[in-house]
Amino acid sequence: MNEDAIVTAIAEIARSAHDRRILLGIGDDAALWQPSRSHRSAFTADMLVEGVHFTRDLMSLEDAGWRAMAANASDLAAMGARPVLATVSLGVPESAKPAEVLELYRGIAAAARASRLSVAGGDLSRAPAFTIAIAAVGEVRASNVKLRSGARTGDVIAVTGELGASRAGLEAAKEPSLLAGDLRQRALAAFRRPNARCDEGRFLAASRNVDAMMDCSDGLSTDLDRLCIASRLGACIRDVPVAESASAAARALGLDPQRFALAGGEDFELIAAIRPRAFKRLAAAFHARFGRKLYAVGTFRAQPGIEYDGEPLAREGWDHFAASTSAL
Amino acid sequence: MNEDAIVTAIAEIARSAHDRRILLGIGDDAALWQPSRSHRSAFTADMLVEGVHFTRDLMSLEDAGWRAMAANASDLAAMGARPVLATVSLGVPESAKPAEVLELYRGIAAAARASRLSVAGGDLSRAPAFTIAIAAVGEVRASNVKLRSGARTGDVIAVTGELGASRAGLEAAKEPSLLAGDLRQRALAAFRRPNARCDEGRFLAASRNVDAMMDCSDGLSTDLDRLCIASRLGACIRDVPVAESASAAARALGLDPQRFALAGGEDFELIAAIRPRAFKRLAAAFHARFGRKLYAVGTFRAQPGIEYDGEPLAREGWDHFAASTSAL
Repeated sequence: MNEDAIVTAIAEIARSAHDRRILLGIGDDAALWQPSRSHRSAFTADMLVEGVHFTRDLMSLEDAGWRAMAANASDLAAMGARPVLATVSLGVPESAKPAEVLELYRGIAAAARASRLSVAGGDLSRAPAFTIAIAAVGEVRASNVKLRSGARTGDVIAVTGELGASRAGLEAAKEPSLLAGDLRQRALAAFRRPNARCDEGRFLAASRNVDAMMDCSDGLSTDLDRLCIASRLGACIRDVPVAESASAAARALGLDPQRFALAGGEDFELIAAIRPRAFKRLAAAFHARFGRKLYAVGTFRAQPGIEYDGEPLAREGWDHFAASTSAL
Repeated sequence: MNEDAIVTAIAEIARSAHDRRILLGIGDDAALWQPSRSHRSAFTADMLVEGVHFTRDLMSLEDAGWRAMAANASDLAAMGARPVLATVSLGVPESAKPAEVLELYRGIAAAARASRLSVAGGDLSRAPAFTIAIAAVGEVRASNVKLRSGARTGDVIAVTGELGASRAGLEAAKEPSLLAGDLRQRALAAFRRPNARCDEGRFLAASRNVDAMMDCSDGLSTDLDRLCIASRLGACIRDVPVAESASAAARALGLDPQRFALAGGEDFELIAAIRPRAFKRLAAAFHARFGRKLYAVGTFRAQPGIEYDGEPLAREGWDHFAASTSAL
């Protein structure tokens, strides 16, 4: 049973006793709730565990705290929601010093500030390893909600930034000689302090020409596959925007840069399905607003499966439950 | 540094960048947010870890799931909030079978149904031990919000039920010969399937004569101390309603039943501060509504500290960070 199969079984168990005002449950980036007719609240939760999602030889506890909060902010970004508040449950090993707990918390608070999320409570507990469980809430206007299931045949597959830098940073943290100078610094920053695209998400969500959105936290090949399944479509990928540090890392490792970037997770860029006629105009407005490019990476098609470079593309990203998944 | 000291330091770090619509942050049973003028949303989060909060020789995974969700529902009950939805992040050890994950989830879903909470999303992750991190949201009318800080000198300290049964169940699970027959069954049920007092919380919250509320999850001696500190008061405890199973367990262990019940956590009864003139009427209405007694256990006083049986009472409940705290 892989992660998606267990999630499906869990959703079945949880389905009973559903509130009619819960408009979207397990399976999207966040759950949606309707506190009033005009409002939607988006809820998301993520757990980071030392030894599974991070190890302290590769990043500091402050970085780990940042990443945990950024992952939640990214899920809200994918719903087009304005981040509002978060609760933080921390599991702390017996051997940890109070200063370590506070270091971790400083990273959590810094990422919260960067996304304008208020930390509004939580829990503190002993645990065998540092465990960061965050739940976050955002607000979105009902008409702006974008789901995974909304993509249409012919829509442009867009991503909000270059991919692969976080994976390059992971490889560079493991092998210091892999990258040098500025490329190394940029890769490490992308890996340790990724930025959630909340403003970009709200911008895209406000457009009627955006049919679907999700974030790209498990790698484009995995997450695009999820989006395709939710929308009952397939996709052709033509061109992957690869971060310079990722190209360099891939070449140093003897890998194809585009495939390296396709399988690299934790970039926190957004994937959006955009009406083909509107793409050029929207990309120009995006560039004017954020000073960065909105990249067209391919097209949604009716035929299931993802094609890249003329061949079917297998999922290569992160599956928390695949037997072959190793820690980090 | 004990749990409360670390929470204070964490609250300091998190204080920056606070949204004005967040009316109450770290330190109460739940955080409060104002999505609109008339509404308040209450947010809470709790983490349960195998080996820390539960062990499988004493309860099933289904029970552990129930308890995790009930703990969150109880925090909402303490705010007088109607439970709405919850997110569930599960950490699952590599050795776990999918059937075990689903068993755990069935307990979570059953407790959610019992409190009318919808499970609306979450996360699944590898972890060194089963870890259940739940965040829950409730709704409460602005005028019904009861905080820990609202108690007044002279208020009656009331609890919504007998105490100590959950601790008796823990002792009975550890030592099967301690209790027999029906007493044993009731103690084990209280320990493994505690009930959050959501309806009772909403009932009390609707009364103008209730000044403060919190839940009694870490033991009355610890939680009443927290309520006193938040309200800048002290308290005299005169009479503790002890569950029959708790009396029997205490006697079998050679302990004083009232002190046994005072220090026993996880009962999930509510503690309320009630205007003295209104107590009798409110207790009668409570009994008529729920068929159970609302117990007066003592009185709030201006002088700090808690007095029991003419002597100062030390905290004896659960502190997740005290050096002496052992697993369970």
